[in-house]
Amino acid sequence: MRTVEIGSAGDDRLADYTRLTDAGLRTHLEAEHGLFIAEGTKVITRAVAAGYPVRSMLLGRARLGDLPALGEACQSMRQDVPVFVVPDDVAESLTGFRVHRGALASLSRRPLPAVRDVVGAVRRVVVLEDLVDHGNVGAIFRCAAALGVDAVVLSPRCADPLYRRAVKVSMGAVFAIPYARMTGWYDGLAELKASGFRLLALTPDDRAAPIAGALCAASRVALLLGTEGDGLSARWQDEADLTVRIPMNPAARAAGVDSLNVVAAAAIACHLLTQPD
Amino acid sequence: MRTVEIGSAGDDRLADYTRLTDAGLRTHLEAEHGLFIAEGTKVITRAVAAGYPVRSMLLGRARLGDLPALGEACQSMRQDVPVFVVPDDVAESLTGFRVHRGALASLSRRPLPAVRDVVGAVRRVVVLEDLVDHGNVGAIFRCAAALGVDAVVLSPRCADPLYRRAVKVSMGAVFAIPYARMTGWYDGLAELKASGFRLLALTPDDRAAPIAGALCAASRVALLLGTEGDGLSARWQDEADLTVRIPMNPAARAAGVDSLNVVAAAAIACHLLTQPD
Repeated sequence: MRTVEIGSAGDDRLADYTRLTDAGLRTHLEAEHGLFIAEGTKVITRAVAAGYPVRSMLLGRARLGDLPALGEACQSMRQDVPVFVVPDDVAESLTGFRVHRGALASLSRRPLPAVRDVVGAVRRVVVLEDLVDHGNVGAIFRCAAALGVDAVVLSPRCADPLYRRAVKVSMGAVFAIPYARMTGWYDGLAELKASGFRLLALTPDDRAAPIAGALCAASRVALLLGTEGDGLSARWQDEADLTVRIPMNPAARAAGVDSLNVVAAAAIACHLLTQPD
Repeated sequence: MRTVEIGSAGDDRLADYTRLTDAGLRTHLEAEHGLFIAEGTKVITRAVAAGYPVRSMLLGRARLGDLPALGEACQSMRQDVPVFVVPDDVAESLTGFRVHRGALASLSRRPLPAVRDVVGAVRRVVVLEDLVDHGNVGAIFRCAAALGVDAVVLSPRCADPLYRRAVKVSMGAVFAIPYARMTGWYDGLAELKASGFRLLALTPDDRAAPIAGALCAASRVALLLGTEGDGLSARWQDEADLTVRIPMNPAARAAGVDSLNVVAAAAIACHLLTQPD
C-alpha cells in the first residue's frame, strides 16, 4: 500500500470513482472495467478477505486516520495498492456524495460461478426474480447470510449485488454468501428442479399454503422471491412446486395492510428456511 | 371537497406543505400546528378511514385524474376539504420533492392515548427505544400491523410515526395499529411490567436466549427493540425479564456478518411473537 496525493478531480487515476451516484453510468463503467466499489474500512476488509483484488483506494484528507486499518486489511494481498489521498471537497465533487464516512475502494470483479456450482452441494437457496432496488438486494443478502441460507441465485435481470448501494446495505454480506446468475429467465428454474430442489414461490396470495408447514418435509428447498411491485411472474409461480405465504393478521388485511415489504418477507422466510428440522 | 386553484408557492394557504424535506423544520411546524402529511390516494384513504380529519389536500395539475378517488376517500368525512390544485413546478418547488406520484394531504393529529390505554387488554406489544430513522419506524409499524402485533409503545425520544417518511414506508400501517408514547424513559417500562407483561429485550448478543423458546410460556409479552446503531440501552436490558436473540449462522458470524438490520430483526421477531401458541 502506498499513498498518492492527488489534487484534482479530473486526474485520470481517479476514473474508477467518477459519478458514483449515477446508477446508469456506473452500470456501464463497472461492467466494462470489471470493477465495483466498496465503502468504509469494515466492508473493504470483508471484500479483501473474500478474495477480491483491490485496484485502488480513495481517501479524503479528513479520514487519513483510517490508513492503518486499511493497511491491515490489505496485508493479506501482497499487492502494491495505491491509496489516493485527495482534499475532501475534491472527493465529494468527484463522487457526488460525502466521503467523510471513510475510505472507498475500487475492487476487481471475479467471474461469477455457474448456478450448478453454487447450488451443487447445498440445501437452502434463495432465488431473486428481477428485483430492481439495490438496497433491497443488499438487505436480502444480509438476511440470507446472517441466518445461514447456503446460496443465492439471481434471475438474469435482477439488480447487481456488487453495485455500491447493495454492497453498503448488505454490510459486506454480498461477499459472505455464494451467488450466481441464471443465463436465462424462462427456463432458469429447470436446473434447480433437476437438482432435486423443491421450489417454493413466496406470494402474499391468501390461497397459498402457510410457509412454515411447507418447509418441514423437503430436504432441498429453493425459495423464490419476486420483484418489489408485482411479485413473482406467472411463469415462475407456475414452475414452482408450491406457492407459499407468510400468514397475515386478518384485521390488518381489512384495514388495507395486506402485505410486508420484500425485505421483511425475505427475513421471515429465510429465518424459517434455516430452522433445524 | 372543493378544488382551489393556486398559482404561487408563496400563497399562505399552502403553508402546511412548506419544505417537506426539511426534517428539523417540519418537526417544529407539525408539532406546533398539530398536523402531519400523507402521500398518495391509498395512504390518504387509510388515514381518513382511521378517523384523522383532513385539513387540506395538494394536487399537481398532472394528477387531476386522482380527484374522484380522493373525493371517495373524503365522503365519509362530511367536511368541506379544500383541494389546492397547483402547477406541477410550483408543487415541486414548494415541497422539495416530486409530486407527480400523487396527492398530498395535510391531516390533523389527535391526542395520543396513554400507554395504559393501548396495552390494557392486549397480549402482544412491541416497544421501540429511541429509533432515529423514520423509514425504520414506518417499516416496523408495517410488520407489526400486518403480522398482528396488538400495539406499539414508543420511548419518549423515538422518531415520530406520523412523520411523512414513516407514514409512507409504513404504507399507512401507522394508522392501523394503536400506539402510545411513554412520558419517561427511565421508568417507562415499569408500567408494562406492572400490567403483567413479560419484557423480552432483543439483542444480537450471543449469550441471550433464542427468542423462539422464550415466547411459548408467557401470555403477555412486550418485545423491546433498540436503536439502529447501539441497540437497547443498558437500563432497558437490565429492566427486561430476559434478553433474547435471533439465532445467527456461525459461519456468517465468522465472516463478519453478525447481525440483521433492525427491520429484518423486527420482522422475524413480530412473526414469532404472533404465532398461535
